[in-house]
Amino acid sequence: MDPTDPRTHDLGFARVDVDRAARTGDPEVVLGQGKRPEQVVALLRTLHERHPDRMVLATRLGPEALDLVAGELPDAHVDEVARAATLGPPPAPRGRVLVVAAGTSDAPVAAEAALSVAAHGAGVARIDDVGVAGLHRLLAVRDELAAADALVVVAGMEGALPSVVGGLVGVPLVAVPTSIGYGASLGGVSALLGMLNSCAPGIGVVNIDNGYGAGVLAARIARQSAR
Amino acid sequence: MDPTDPRTHDLGFARVDVDRAARTGDPEVVLGQGKRPEQVVALLRTLHERHPDRMVLATRLGPEALDLVAGELPDAHVDEVARAATLGPPPAPRGRVLVVAAGTSDAPVAAEAALSVAAHGAGVARIDDVGVAGLHRLLAVRDELAAADALVVVAGMEGALPSVVGGLVGVPLVAVPTSIGYGASLGGVSALLGMLNSCAPGIGVVNIDNGYGAGVLAARIARQSAR
Amino acid sequence: MDPTDPRTHDLGFARVDVDRAARTGDPEVVLGQGKRPEQVVALLRTLHERHPDRMVLATRLGPEALDLVAGELPDAHVDEVARAATLGPPPAPRGRVLVVAAGTSDAPVAAEAALSVAAHGAGVARIDDVGVAGLHRLLAVRDELAAADALVVVAGMEGALPSVVGGLVGVPLVAVPTSIGYGASLGGVSALLGMLNSCAPGIGVVNIDNGYGAGVLAARIARQSAR
Amino acid sequence: MDPTDPRTHDLGFARVDVDRAARTGDPEVVLGQGKRPEQVVALLRTLHERHPDRMVLATRLGPEALDLVAGELPDAHVDEVARAATLGPPPAPRGRVLVVAAGTSDAPVAAEAALSVAAHGAGVARIDDVGVAGLHRLLAVRDELAAADALVVVAGMEGALPSVVGGLVGVPLVAVPTSIGYGASLGGVSALLGMLNSCAPGIGVVNIDNGYGAGVLAARIARQSAR
Amino acid sequence: MDPTDPRTHDLGFARVDVDRAARTGDPEVVLGQGKRPEQVVALLRTLHERHPDRMVLATRLGPEALDLVAGELPDAHVDEVARAATLGPPPAPRGRVLVVAAGTSDAPVAAEAALSVAAHGAGVARIDDVGVAGLHRLLAVRDELAAADALVVVAGMEGALPSVVGGLVGVPLVAVPTSIGYGASLGGVSALLGMLNSCAPGIGVVNIDNGYGAGVLAARIARQSAR
Amino acid sequence: MDPTDPRTHDLGFARVDVDRAARTGDPEVVLGQGKRPEQVVALLRTLHERHPDRMVLATRLGPEALDLVAGELPDAHVDEVARAATLGPPPAPRGRVLVVAAGTSDAPVAAEAALSVAAHGAGVARIDDVGVAGLHRLLAVRDELAAADALVVVAGMEGALPSVVGGLVGVPLVAVPTSIGYGASLGGVSALLGMLNSCAPGIGVVNIDNGYGAGVLAARIARQSAR
Amino acid sequence: MDPTDPRTHDLGFARVDVDRAARTGDPEVVLGQGKRPEQVVALLRTLHERHPDRMVLATRLGPEALDLVAGELPDAHVDEVARAATLGPPPAPRGRVLVVAAGTSDAPVAAEAALSVAAHGAGVARIDDVGVAGLHRLLAVRDELAAADALVVVAGMEGALPSVVGGLVGVPLVAVPTSIGYGASLGGVSALLGMLNSCAPGIGVVNIDNGYGAGVLAARIARQSAR
Amino acid sequence: MDPTDPRTHDLGFARVDVDRAARTGDPEVVLGQGKRPEQVVALLRTLHERHPDRMVLATRLGPEALDLVAGELPDAHVDEVARAATLGPPPAPRGRVLVVAAGTSDAPVAAEAALSVAAHGAGVARIDDVGVAGLHRLLAVRDELAAADALVVVAGMEGALPSVVGGLVGVPLVAVPTSIGYGASLGGVSALLGMLNSCAPGIGVVNIDNGYGAGVLAARIARQSAR
Repeated sequence: MDPTDPRTHDLGFARVDVDRAARTGDPEVVLGQGKRPEQVVALLRTLHERHPDRMVLATRLGPEALDLVAGELPDAHVDEVARAATLGPPPAPRGRVLVVAAGTSDAPVAAEAALSVAAHGAGVARIDDVGVAGLHRLLAVRDELAAADALVVVAGMEGALPSVVGGLVGVPLVAVPTSIGYGASLGGVSALLGMLNSCAPGIGVVNIDNGYGAGVLAARIARQSAR
Repeated sequence: MDPTDPRTHDLGFARVDVDRAARTGDPEVVLGQGKRPEQVVALLRTLHERHPDRMVLATRLGPEALDLVAGELPDAHVDEVARAATLGPPPAPRGRVLVVAAGTSDAPVAAEAALSVAAHGAGVARIDDVGVAGLHRLLAVRDELAAADALVVVAGMEGALPSVVGGLVGVPLVAVPTSIGYGASLGGVSALLGMLNSCAPGIGVVNIDNGYGAGVLAARIARQSAR
Repeated sequence: MDPTDPRTHDLGFARVDVDRAARTGDPEVVLGQGKRPEQVVALLRTLHERHPDRMVLATRLGPEALDLVAGELPDAHVDEVARAATLGPPPAPRGRVLVVAAGTSDAPVAAEAALSVAAHGAGVARIDDVGVAGLHRLLAVRDELAAADALVVVAGMEGALPSVVGGLVGVPLVAVPTSIGYGASLGGVSALLGMLNSCAPGIGVVNIDNGYGAGVLAARIARQSAR
Repeated sequence: MDPTDPRTHDLGFARVDVDRAARTGDPEVVLGQGKRPEQVVALLRTLHERHPDRMVLATRLGPEALDLVAGELPDAHVDEVARAATLGPPPAPRGRVLVVAAGTSDAPVAAEAALSVAAHGAGVARIDDVGVAGLHRLLAVRDELAAADALVVVAGMEGALPSVVGGLVGVPLVAVPTSIGYGASLGGVSALLGMLNSCAPGIGVVNIDNGYGAGVLAARIARQSAR
Repeated sequence: MDPTDPRTHDLGFARVDVDRAARTGDPEVVLGQGKRPEQVVALLRTLHERHPDRMVLATRLGPEALDLVAGELPDAHVDEVARAATLGPPPAPRGRVLVVAAGTSDAPVAAEAALSVAAHGAGVARIDDVGVAGLHRLLAVRDELAAADALVVVAGMEGALPSVVGGLVGVPLVAVPTSIGYGASLGGVSALLGMLNSCAPGIGVVNIDNGYGAGVLAARIARQSAR
Repeated sequence: MDPTDPRTHDLGFARVDVDRAARTGDPEVVLGQGKRPEQVVALLRTLHERHPDRMVLATRLGPEALDLVAGELPDAHVDEVARAATLGPPPAPRGRVLVVAAGTSDAPVAAEAALSVAAHGAGVARIDDVGVAGLHRLLAVRDELAAADALVVVAGMEGALPSVVGGLVGVPLVAVPTSIGYGASLGGVSALLGMLNSCAPGIGVVNIDNGYGAGVLAARIARQSAR
Repeated sequence: MDPTDPRTHDLGFARVDVDRAARTGDPEVVLGQGKRPEQVVALLRTLHERHPDRMVLATRLGPEALDLVAGELPDAHVDEVARAATLGPPPAPRGRVLVVAAGTSDAPVAAEAALSVAAHGAGVARIDDVGVAGLHRLLAVRDELAAADALVVVAGMEGALPSVVGGLVGVPLVAVPTSIGYGASLGGVSALLGMLNSCAPGIGVVNIDNGYGAGVLAARIARQSAR
Repeated sequence: MDPTDPRTHDLGFARVDVDRAARTGDPEVVLGQGKRPEQVVALLRTLHERHPDRMVLATRLGPEALDLVAGELPDAHVDEVARAATLGPPPAPRGRVLVVAAGTSDAPVAAEAALSVAAHGAGVARIDDVGVAGLHRLLAVRDELAAADALVVVAGMEGALPSVVGGLVGVPLVAVPTSIGYGASLGGVSALLGMLNSCAPGIGVVNIDNGYGAGVLAARIARQSAR
C-alpha cells in the first residue's frame, strides 16, 4: 500500500478514508464504540484538519471519551444526550428533516439522529413522545409531518409508529428501531421486525439504535430535495 | 385407568374429556389438525351426544375433513372461511364481543374467532380491513370498539393494530397475530412479538393464527360481564 | 403541536397523556425503566396532580428511583418487592382477581401484578409457590381459583402452570412468563412459548415479566364482571 | 362505520382506502398474496375507477391471478417476471431511480422494484448482475450510480452489495435483501442482517423480497429531488 | 480401510457397523430418512443376516419404503402408525417401560417409541391422551406410572406433561417433544424447550419426534433394572 | 389452602413440598438462583428438619449464600467448585454413576452432577478432561465407561462427547451441555443442539449447565439397577 | 457499462464474469438454483467457449436442468448424485484431497465436493460412512487422513466428525455441515454450529450443503501444496 | 486410566494432551477463558517443558492472567492487544500468511490470528483498516493479497470483506467474523452469516472472534505450500 496515497491518512492504528467526502459528499465519521478515548480524539482532530470548513462527527462515545474530547478539543461541541461530539462549523442547511420519537426513553437515539442530520447539511426539527397509544398527539402534528422533506421515526417496543406515520403522509421515511423494552423486545429486534413488516410502504429501516445512519440518509434526501 | 370413569369417554384412538364442561363451563373442542377426517367425525359425534343442548366445535379442518363432516353429519354447520364445523344449537348469547381484523387476508382467523365466540356463548360482531395504515377507518368505529365487552383484534405483518386500539379504548383486548406476511414476518412471529411488546397495556396475546383460543377467552370475559 | 392542548401536559422531557383516563378508563402509568429518578418523581407528581382522587403508579423502578420517590414524595407508597411506587388513594375495588405464582423467585412479578390490579380498581389476592411439580398444592386451591373473576398466572422455567390451571377452571386467565430460569430458558422465552402453545384454551399471554400489563387486563375483566 | 364515507369503498370482502392518494400522494396497491384471483381483479378494477388517470398496481400475483387479470382486464399490463400487473397510464416520470441487482436470480425482485418506481411516478433504469465477487463490473458503472436521484440495490446471499455501493457514492440508497441462497441464508435473513449492519451509512433497508416497498420509497425520493 | 475388517460390512453405498451390538449391546438401526427404499431393504436384510436371533429395526420409512419392505421381505413386520418395520424375533423382554402420550396426534411418535423399546429388549405398555388440560385422566393412572422401570413421555404444543409426571413419580423419565402444534410451536421447538426447562428434576430429553432414541434409552434402563 | 396440610410447610416466602420424597423417593432441593442467602439457609434448615436422616441439597449458590450457609449451618458441607451445599448424612450408595467431562472448564457442572448423584443415593466417580480432540484419552477409559450403571457426560463448545461415548458403550447416558465457549456457542445452545442431534441413540439431554438434573436422573437409574 | 469490455460477456439475462479465471485462477461456476434450465445450458456453453481447455461446472441442478443439459450438451458429463454437470476436460490434478463423509445420506454433498475438487485441478478420493458413533471405522483410516494435502469432512446431525478428525491429524480441514437430520437439527444449523464451535483448531467451515465451496477451497490448498 | 501414559500429563485439574504435536504437528494451546490465572501459568509451564524447542501459546487471557504470566514466567512474551502470551522460541517460518482486517476495532482478533500464525510456524504480515466502504484502500493492496500463501480476513458488522477479497484473488482464504457491531449484529452472528453465505467460493469460516483457529488453519496451509 502506498503510504503517500492522498486518499488515505495513516494514524498508525487507523487508516482514515479522507477521500470519502469526494466520493460520497460526506466526510468519514468516527464510530466511538470499540475505540479508546485517545483514538477518538486523534481521529476527530485528523478529520477536522482535512475538513476544516465542515463539521466532523464522533458518535457512540462513552463518558470517558466525552470527557477527553471536551478536555483535549476545546472547540468541540459535546452532546451528552446524543453521546456524540462535533468539531467545526455546521454546513449550511438545505431542506428540512423532522425527527419523530415515540417515547421519552428514545431520546438518545433521536438526538443522535438530529445531530447527524445537522452535521450532514440539512435542517432539522424534533417531535418527541408521540407514541401510538395516544393517537391524538400524533394527529395533532400531521401537518408538520407532511411539510418535511424527510422523516426519521424512532420507536422501541413494538415499533408501530412508522406504520402509522407512513399511513398519514407520503414523505420519505427512515425508521429507527430502538432497544427500549424488555423481555420479548429482544434488545430491539421486535421493533426492527415490526418496522420491516410495516403495512405502509415507502419506509426504509436502519439498524437498532442507529440514529446516525438514519440521519445521514434523511439529510441526503432533504439536501437534494432542496436543490 | 378405569374405563368406566364417567369423566372420560374412550374412542379407541382418543379419550374424550367429557368432564371438561363441568370443570370449565365449556365442552372440549376438536382440533382437526393432525387428525384423520373420520376421527374428526367420530369426535364431533361423541361430543354432540354428550352435549346435545350445546353447540360443539371442530377447528383447523382441511378440505377432506370439511367434506366428510358435511356428508356424515348433515346437521353440522360447515364454515369454509373459518375452516371449522359446528354441531348442535348455539348457546344463548350473553355479552358482546367485537372481532376486529386489519386486512382481508386475516379473514380466516377472524372467522374462526367469531365462530368460537358464538359457540362459547357470547354475542359477536365483526369489523374488517381497518389496518393502521388508514387510521380514519379505525377512528370511525371508535364508539363501536368502546361499546363491546371484549375485543378480539386480529392482525398480521407488523401486528400494530392492538396497540392502536388499546390506546383508544379500555375494553379487555385479546390480540391474535396471524401468519400473513412474508420474509421477515417469520411466519407470524413478527406480529406476535409486536403484540407482546405493545406500548398499550391490558392486551392478552394468543398463539399465531389461534382464532379459537382468542374466541374462548373473549367469550368468557363477555359472558361474565353480562351476568 | 398546540402546547395548550388540555389532553397533553408537556414536562419538557415528556408529554404526559393526561387524556388517557378519559379514553380508556385508566390513567397513564410511569414505566421507570430508561428514565432518570428525577424524571420518575416529576411524572408521578404530574399524574397525581391531574388524578388526585385516584392512585397513580410507577413501575420498574431501580433502587435509586425507589429512594428518591420515598424522599421526594412522602405520601407515596413504595413496594420494594414489586419495585414500584404509588401515589394517591386506591380506587374502590370492584370484582376480584387472584394472582397465582409458580415459585418463590416469581414473587417480584406477582407483586407487580397484584399492585397493578389494585391500582386499576379491582380486588386482589395471591397464592404463591404452587408449581406443577407439586400438584397437590394446586388441587388444594381449586375452589379459590374457580371463585375469581380473573386469574393472573405467573411462572418461569417451562411455564406450564397456566395450562394446568386452565384445565381446572374456566375463569378468564392472563398468563405472565417470567425470566426465572437459566440456559435454555432463554431469558423467559421458553416460558413465553409454553404459555402461547398451551393445550388449554382461553389464555391470554403478556410479555415476559410484565406483571403490570397482566394486572391491567385482569382488573378490567374483573371490574366489568362486577358491574 | 359510515358506509357513505367517501374515503373508503366497501367491496364486501375489503374496504378500499381510496383516500390514500390524498393523504400520501400515492394510491393504495393490491398485495396479491393471500387473496383469491377474483378479489385481485375486483380490487384492481375499483382502484382504477377511482384513479382513472394514474396507473394502479397489483403485486405478488400467482400464475392464476396473472391469468385472470389478463383475461378479465384486457387493458391491464401483466409483467410475468415481476409477478405483477398494472392498469391505467403511468404517471409522468420525475427524477430518476437506478435499480441495481447482484445476480440473475434476483431479477424478479428487481423487476418488481422497477415497476413500482414507474407506477409511483419516477423514471427508472436497471443494471443487473454486478455482484461483489466481480468488482470490475461494479466499478465500470460508478458514474451511472452517482448520477441517479435514488438507488435501489437488490442482493441475496450475504447481501454485501449495498455496503460496496454505499461506499462508492452518496446517493440515497434503498437496500432490498432477497431470499436467494440456501442453508445459512435462512430464507433471506442473512442478507437482511448484512444490509442492516452495513459499514456504509445512508442505507435504508426494506423487508426480504420487498421490491415494491423499495420502489415506493425510491420514487418518492426521486420525485421530490426533481421538483 | 481394510474391507475384510469383520466389524464393518460394506454394501457399496453404506458401511454397516455390525460390531455395534458387541460394543453397546444393541445392533445398528436403519434410519430410513434420506435413504432410497431399496437401500432400506438391503440394509435391513444385511443386519438381519448378521443378527438372525434378534429383531432389527428400520424407522422413519415413507410409504414407498414401507411398501417395498412388505413386498421384498415377507417376514418383516410393518407398523404403519410408527412408520417403521422390524425383521426377526423380538428379544425376550426384561423390565417394563410405560409410554405415555399427551394427545391423539402424538400417536406416531409414541408408536415408534414403543416399537423401539420392544426391539431393544424391554417390555412395553402405552397410555394415550392424558394431556395436562385434563389432570384427572393423569391422576387416575398414577400407580401405573409409579410401577414402571422407565417412562417415555411424549407431548407436543407446550410440552408440559413430563413436568407434571415428573412431579408425581420418581421413575427415570425420558421426554420426547413432538412437532404437533402450529405458529409459535416452531415445529416442536417450544415443546423441546419446555421439557428442557422442566421444574421437575430427573428428566432426560431427546430430539423432536425422536421416539426411537427415547425407546432405546428407556429399554436400556428397564433391562438393567431387571437384571 | 389448608395451612395445616402436612404435605406442605409454609415459610412465609415459600411453601416447601415436604411430601415430595413420599411421591418421588427424593426430597425437594433448594435452587439457590433468585433466592436471598437467608432464604437459602431457612429452606435448607427446614428440609433438614423434615429429612434428618437424609442429605438435603442446595445448588446454584452465589458466594454470599455459600458464606452464610457455612456460617449459619456449621454442619453443612459446602462445595465451592460445585457452588452447592449439603446438610445431613449421605444416603447409602446403590449402583454406580460415572461423571465424564470434556474439559477443565466444565468442572463446576461436573462437580454439581457428582454431588447430586451422591445426595440422591448412588455411588459416583469422575473422569475429567477427555475431550474428543484427544481420543486416546477416551479410549483408554472405555472399560470404566462400560462398567458404570449410568453415565453423565458433560461438554461445552460443540458438545460432541456424548456421541462418541454413546458409540463406544451401551450404558444409559445423560448428557449435560455447558455454557463453555464463545461466539457461535450461543451460551451453550450449540452444545445442547449437538447432543439432541446425536447420531448415537440412547442419550437423554438436560438443560444447559444442569448438573443437578442430570445427577438426579443418573442416580435414579443406578439405584434401581442395583436393586 | 461498456458492452465491449472483454472481462464480461453479456447473455441478456446474465453478465458472465469471464475474467474470473485471470483474477482467481478458477473460472466462474454456474449455480443452477433459481435459474431456468435453458439459462443453465446457455451459461455452461458460454463458459466452455471461453475456457475450452478447462472443465467448467454447473451445480444445484434440478431434474429438468440435468435432463436439458444431457440433451443439449452431449459432451457434458452429468453426475446425478452430485446434481451437477461438467463440460470440457478436467485440469491435470495437482495435490490430493480426501473427502470424508459421516453417513450415507451425506452422499450428494460429498459427491458435489469431490466433483468440485476435480474441476478445480486437484486429485480426489472419498471415504464414506465413518460417523463418530463407530470410531473403529474412522481410526482404521487414520493414515489415509494424514496423507492428504487437504480434507473435506461432510456431516449432518450433530456435525461432530470434523472435531474428531481434527484431533487425529493436522491436515488443513474444510468442514461441510449438511441438512441431514430432523427436528432440532434445524435444517443443518445444528451441524453448522457444532463445526464452528469445534474444540479442535484448524477447521474452516462452509455453508450448509455447500460441497462446491468446500471443494474449491480444498483444491486450492492441495494445488499449491504440490507446487 | 493409566496415569503413566506418556501421551497425557495430569496436572490435577487438567490432563494435558502432550501427544497432540505428534498426531497433528502442533502442540496443544491453552484456552485461557474459564481458567484461573494460576491454571494458565501451570499449563503454559507444562507445555513449555514438554516442547522446549517450540513456542507454546495461551489465548483469551484476562488482565489478571496476563499479569500473572508476566510475573511468574519472565521468559514469556505477553501481547496485550491479542490478549495472549507465548513461551519459547518461535518455529522457523515456512510460507507466508497475510492477515487482513476491516476496521480498527477488529485489531485484537487480527492480532490473535497473527500471533497464532507465527506460533504455528508460518510467516505473517498484516494489513488493517481496509473495509469495503473504501474500496480504493483494498484495491491498492491487491498484489499483496495475491502473493500470500493463505489469507486470514477479519471483519465485523456485515462481514462483507471476505466476499470482496475472494472475488479479487484465488488464494486460500480463512474468514473470521468479529463481534464488532451493535443491535442487529447480534454479537457477531450477522458477520458470521454473511461470510458463510459469501457469493465468492473458496472461503472457510471460523467461530466469531476466533483468531486463533484461523491462524492455525492458515499456518498449516502456508507451511505445506512451502514444502
